[in-house]
Amino acid sequence: MTRAEVTELVLTAKRMKGLTWKQIHEKVSVSTSPIVITAALLGQMRLEPNEAEKAAELLDLPEEAKIILTEIPYRGSLPQVPPTDPVIYRFYELIQVYGTTWKELIHEEFGDGIMSAIDFDMTMERQPDQKGDRVKIGMSGKFLSYKRY
Amino acid sequence: MTRAEVTELVLTAKRMKGLTWKQIHEKVSVSTSPIVITAALLGQMRLEPNEAEKAAELLDLPEEAKIILTEIPYRGSLPQVPPTDPVIYRFYELIQVYGTTWKELIHEEFGDGIMSAIDFDMTMERQPDQKGDRVKIGMSGKFLSYKRY
Amino acid sequence: MTRAEVTELVLTAKRMKGLTWKQIHEKVSVSTSPIVITAALLGQMRLEPNEAEKAAELLDLPEEAKIILTEIPYRGSLPQVPPTDPVIYRFYELIQVYGTTWKELIHEEFGDGIMSAIDFDMTMERQPDQKGDRVKIGMSGKFLSYKRY
Amino acid sequence: MTRAEVTELVLTAKRMKGLTWKQIHEKVSVSTSPIVITAALLGQMRLEPNEAEKAAELLDLPEEAKIILTEIPYRGSLPQVPPTDPVIYRFYELIQVYGTTWKELIHEEFGDGIMSAIDFDMTMERQPDQKGDRVKIGMSGKFLSYKRY
Amino acid sequence: MTRAEVTELVLTAKRMKGLTWKQIHEKVSVSTSPIVITAALLGQMRLEPNEAEKAAELLDLPEEAKIILTEIPYRGSLPQVPPTDPVIYRFYELIQVYGTTWKELIHEEFGDGIMSAIDFDMTMERQPDQKGDRVKIGMSGKFLSYKRY
Amino acid sequence: MTRAEVTELVLTAKRMKGLTWKQIHEKVSVSTSPIVITAALLGQMRLEPNEAEKAAELLDLPEEAKIILTEIPYRGSLPQVPPTDPVIYRFYELIQVYGTTWKELIHEEFGDGIMSAIDFDMTMERQPDQKGDRVKIGMSGKFLSYKRY
Amino acid sequence: MTRAEVTELVLTAKRMKGLTWKQIHEKVSVSTSPIVITAALLGQMRLEPNEAEKAAELLDLPEEAKIILTEIPYRGSLPQVPPTDPVIYRFYELIQVYGTTWKELIHEEFGDGIMSAIDFDMTMERQPDQKGDRVKIGMSGKFLSYKRY
Amino acid sequence: MTRAEVTELVLTAKRMKGLTWKQIHEKVSVSTSPIVITAALLGQMRLEPNEAEKAAELLDLPEEAKIILTEIPYRGSLPQVPPTDPVIYRFYELIQVYGTTWKELIHEEFGDGIMSAIDFDMTMERQPDQKGDRVKIGMSGKFLSYKRY
Amino acid sequence: MTRAEVTELVLTAKRMKGLTWKQIHEKVSVSTSPIVITAALLGQMRLEPNEAEKAAELLDLPEEAKIILTEIPYRGSLPQVPPTDPVIYRFYELIQVYGTTWKELIHEEFGDGIMSAIDFDMTMERQPDQKGDRVKIGMSGKFLSYKRY
Amino acid sequence: MTRAEVTELVLTAKRMKGLTWKQIHEKVSVSTSPIVITAALLGQMRLEPNEAEKAAELLDLPEEAKIILTEIPYRGSLPQVPPTDPVIYRFYELIQVYGTTWKELIHEEFGDGIMSAIDFDMTMERQPDQKGDRVKIGMSGKFLSYKRY
Repeated sequence: MTRAEVTELVLTAKRMKGLTWKQIHEKVSVSTSPIVITAALLGQMRLEPNEAEKAAELLDLPEEAKIILTEIPYRGSLPQVPPTDPVIYRFYELIQVYGTTWKELIHEEFGDGIMSAIDFDMTMERQPDQKGDRVKIGMSGKFLSYKRY
Repeated sequence: MTRAEVTELVLTAKRMKGLTWKQIHEKVSVSTSPIVITAALLGQMRLEPNEAEKAAELLDLPEEAKIILTEIPYRGSLPQVPPTDPVIYRFYELIQVYGTTWKELIHEEFGDGIMSAIDFDMTMERQPDQKGDRVKIGMSGKFLSYKRY
Repeated sequence: MTRAEVTELVLTAKRMKGLTWKQIHEKVSVSTSPIVITAALLGQMRLEPNEAEKAAELLDLPEEAKIILTEIPYRGSLPQVPPTDPVIYRFYELIQVYGTTWKELIHEEFGDGIMSAIDFDMTMERQPDQKGDRVKIGMSGKFLSYKRY
Repeated sequence: MTRAEVTELVLTAKRMKGLTWKQIHEKVSVSTSPIVITAALLGQMRLEPNEAEKAAELLDLPEEAKIILTEIPYRGSLPQVPPTDPVIYRFYELIQVYGTTWKELIHEEFGDGIMSAIDFDMTMERQPDQKGDRVKIGMSGKFLSYKRY
Repeated sequence: MTRAEVTELVLTAKRMKGLTWKQIHEKVSVSTSPIVITAALLGQMRLEPNEAEKAAELLDLPEEAKIILTEIPYRGSLPQVPPTDPVIYRFYELIQVYGTTWKELIHEEFGDGIMSAIDFDMTMERQPDQKGDRVKIGMSGKFLSYKRY
Repeated sequence: MTRAEVTELVLTAKRMKGLTWKQIHEKVSVSTSPIVITAALLGQMRLEPNEAEKAAELLDLPEEAKIILTEIPYRGSLPQVPPTDPVIYRFYELIQVYGTTWKELIHEEFGDGIMSAIDFDMTMERQPDQKGDRVKIGMSGKFLSYKRY
Repeated sequence: MTRAEVTELVLTAKRMKGLTWKQIHEKVSVSTSPIVITAALLGQMRLEPNEAEKAAELLDLPEEAKIILTEIPYRGSLPQVPPTDPVIYRFYELIQVYGTTWKELIHEEFGDGIMSAIDFDMTMERQPDQKGDRVKIGMSGKFLSYKRY
Repeated sequence: MTRAEVTELVLTAKRMKGLTWKQIHEKVSVSTSPIVITAALLGQMRLEPNEAEKAAELLDLPEEAKIILTEIPYRGSLPQVPPTDPVIYRFYELIQVYGTTWKELIHEEFGDGIMSAIDFDMTMERQPDQKGDRVKIGMSGKFLSYKRY
Repeated sequence: MTRAEVTELVLTAKRMKGLTWKQIHEKVSVSTSPIVITAALLGQMRLEPNEAEKAAELLDLPEEAKIILTEIPYRGSLPQVPPTDPVIYRFYELIQVYGTTWKELIHEEFGDGIMSAIDFDMTMERQPDQKGDRVKIGMSGKFLSYKRY
Repeated sequence: MTRAEVTELVLTAKRMKGLTWKQIHEKVSVSTSPIVITAALLGQMRLEPNEAEKAAELLDLPEEAKIILTEIPYRGSLPQVPPTDPVIYRFYELIQVYGTTWKELIHEEFGDGIMSAIDFDMTMERQPDQKGDRVKIGMSGKFLSYKRY
């Protein structure tokens, strides 16, 4: 069984049981962000064993799928690059437009190094707005200095 | 004169005069974010005429460069895709890892549509942290519903 | 079951029952454009639940397929880029030839921003012409201004 | 002198003289669409000799540039594919989402063939709208039947 | 059933029955060129219903395959670009070597426009030659003028 | 001096002297096809020394350019693949649609081998037609059998 | 049955019967080179009917596989380009390093033309050497002159 | 001065002095193969200092060019991959057709490892033949065993 | 059975039996590095027959899988390039940043040649560190001089 | 002045003054590794101001070049991917062969996370060996755990 097959099993179970990601998250974990749980069930993060246990029960997953959910996946969720789906493409477009700006401003503030995408967390929420609600994203990544040696 | 030549003039002037982006921003605009000003001077956004006037004066730019800074550029700042520079690549990696998760959670919260990358604003700041300071990014884009017709 | 499998089921049913897209559209929806209905059945848009109900009945689709038709798909319909099929390539060619012109004229009329592909609708019809009938396409997308912040 | 150099001369003259495409069009031609004139000055269409004469006078172009404007260019205006600029990308996205739908509906209405991108004309205008003005595009291309032989 | 599966059924039947394309063509159509018939059976053109009837009988194809042969396919027959097969690559090489020459000479003779690949027919035959027989190809495509509007 | 620079010199001279390829061909060679002469002046074939002599005189080319015209070029005339120019793209589309058909029919008639693109000649002419004149192309390439050893 | 499936059948039979390519070659043909026989069994050349007969018997191949082995394949054996396998990559590297040199020296010796890859034969053998044995390859391809017409 | 500029200087001097690679080789080195000398002058190998001395004198190269010829270049001579030039493409095609065969036969004879492209030498010569002379190439590369550790 | 299928069998068995690579290595070989054993079981190296015997027994692999594990694989383990998985990408990034530096320093120390990736061995271990443990990698490859001939 | 121009100035000065990287390193820094210094002078790392001062003096670099050497570069040193130069390609090949193995073993030892390419240092040295000296590389990167949140 491959990771992609597990993801397909998850999506089928979610669909046929009429569950939302929010409901799945609440059943699977209290301490972990819904972003991490969703990403794990889509094959990009791993679950802790007890989370996988609950997920497997909720979604009627077979034993091997349950174990696979605790394994570290080969990451990369996009079938093509640049992504063809409009929701995901807009994030890619932000990098095209702001990439060099982010580089300049991070370096000016922190020096030579990067914002970690590993020691990283994020939030996503609805921001009410009279002219139309907004998607609000917060990201926080540890600054890592380039080591001089 | 091309937009790329203007960007090179800007970078040379900044370097030889020992200016920071922060200093340039303060001289060029009070109401606009430093992210927008920096992006414009790097060829990805446009300046208002009075901002371009101040920028040209500060950076000793010729007349044509000043006008070009007020023009809407052909956007896209990356010489290769995926970006080879580590700072910018990490953002690209976030899309690879979280792209499908963002899609699922935005749709579950808002329905069919996208987070606009046009009616969009962002902030970037230093987040002090005992284990090492963090880069904190806030993004906010209007949710646009797919029109049904 | 994947979205691609649903599309294949739809095409087989349409073929074996001898239906046209026009007939399917008439049976599935009165208020929605045939373009949207066809795009949904080809895996690029979603149907409203009652539309999916009617489509599933008309095309003998299984329960899971019916639900999938109401889900928001991962968009992107082209197996290669540039598209190899001549009908679709001609649209791509129009972008190659007119892309920068559209950009200039939209900016001159509206300022900095884009024509939305989300708050967007279109029509397609036959335009009788003595020298040979023509395909007439009308597009209308909301202009979105680049936010300055 | 290459076509790209002519385009750059045109853009510099337009910028330094403070002209709009609308003004240039009015001076260069009465019978031809502003879309064609703009596309020609951007290196994607050709001008008639008398149009080139007027364009060269208005924009102070040298003799060789004037002749080049009457030559048929090597068409293709995009520096990268998919296009990175958001305005142009949205058109590309429409092909990604609607490409197969257009193919199905054109074939159902007209049979096997294509909408010509050569025997083709188009319009672009502002469509006033209370919720925000819209970009309205009309396209009309002759249907060409695949010849059976 | 997909178009690719129909093509594989055709090839298997042709092989196991020991048929040539020439024999298939003679059985399937009298008025249509063997090039069109072969291309249709390889998934790039469509057959008329009576031709599909005869092809299905000759090759023992199931009902759905017979209908698919009358449908307009998503065209594009090459698994990679540039094509790796030497026979097909040589045609690609001719475009690499002569592409700009063809463009210049067509424009000089006909003005701005293209040779249609839709209103197009061709022949292919053996040309006896003492130094070794030659493949002789005749192509004829309607010239389409770029519309000025 | 590079081959590309020679081609640009040729195009400038042709343009400023108001010459056609037909006129150039008549002055440069009597025995060689206009296709070969044009291709050579566009950097894809070589001229014989006496032809280069005449071409250099007619087009006021410097000594080095004259020698370069007799050298065998690094062939390949397309700035992008697939070609963006509509005239050239149509030939590419023919390979996409007919590539596998040509392969099948050549093999059925000749056995295993290819149509040479080296021992190859071609013609291009106007074919008058009431419904619109046609571009008529004749190609003839020696069949080369795959050697068994 | 596809050509790739035949190749997999061949490899499984070879493996389970413990055969070498040398043994297979000896059983299948006396007059043909082991390179050609191996290439055919890997899907890149065709076998003569009597060779296919013997191969099918030796490897227990089904009837359709036997016929497919006599058919001319769609050539191209590399799953990616450049090839990732080190043995095959080294040949690719030789073209990267020596490609332009080969072109210059072939042209200087033979004039304008190519070394045929069709009227071509080769040998591969072990060359004993005290410092470590060497792979010795001999290639011989007919020189084909570019036809002038 | 870059390596590419040195190559262009070499080609211009060779052309204007009417030299052949054979003549250059004879003047530059007695012990080294003409293939190595030509490759070095085309920017893919290095010359020994005394060879560079003679080459610089023969071709009137400036001091820096002379030194650059003794430096180890960044190898890779092809402007595109796959190569568009027919002479070089044929070698690429041989890898496409025979790549997996070479892999199988080398492994069967030598075990796991590769033919070195570094401890490698080659010859190229004219092979007279009544049916048309042939290009004969001999390659010899040391077999390197994959180290087990 | 393909190599990829063997790898999937290995991973399933490892997972369901709760084995680590370390445990597998200890059972399969004493003299060979765990890196080589793991790479072989992932389809990139081969096992010795006795190692394959033990691996097959430990992992309940069928006979054909056991033989395949002793065969030399078609190497190349990455589904996309550049690799999307963060762990593997970081190595790729090191080449992007240090590639030309390694080239310069190896040449300065050793002359013209390469570090072999075939006569090569490596180690990977945990390096305890107060600020956080480190991954320590040691590589050693034979220097191969470019042969002059 | 661009970073690439600075690198070219550095290489020209190094060449004309007959300096080695080792000599440059000794003059420019005592505490920093020669790998970092070389990488900085090749445009991939930055120098400290006092190092840049010494480098500029040693290599006669202009003022702007000196400042640029202290700036953080846009990293990425390879003109093509995969790299065509054999020295650099061998590192790329190691990733192709060992990439998934490194991933498995790092995860088994450390859990979910990566080896940092930022908090990273390395050494490169000659390892004497009777069968031929070896290139010995030592790498050490901090293990970064994927943050769970």
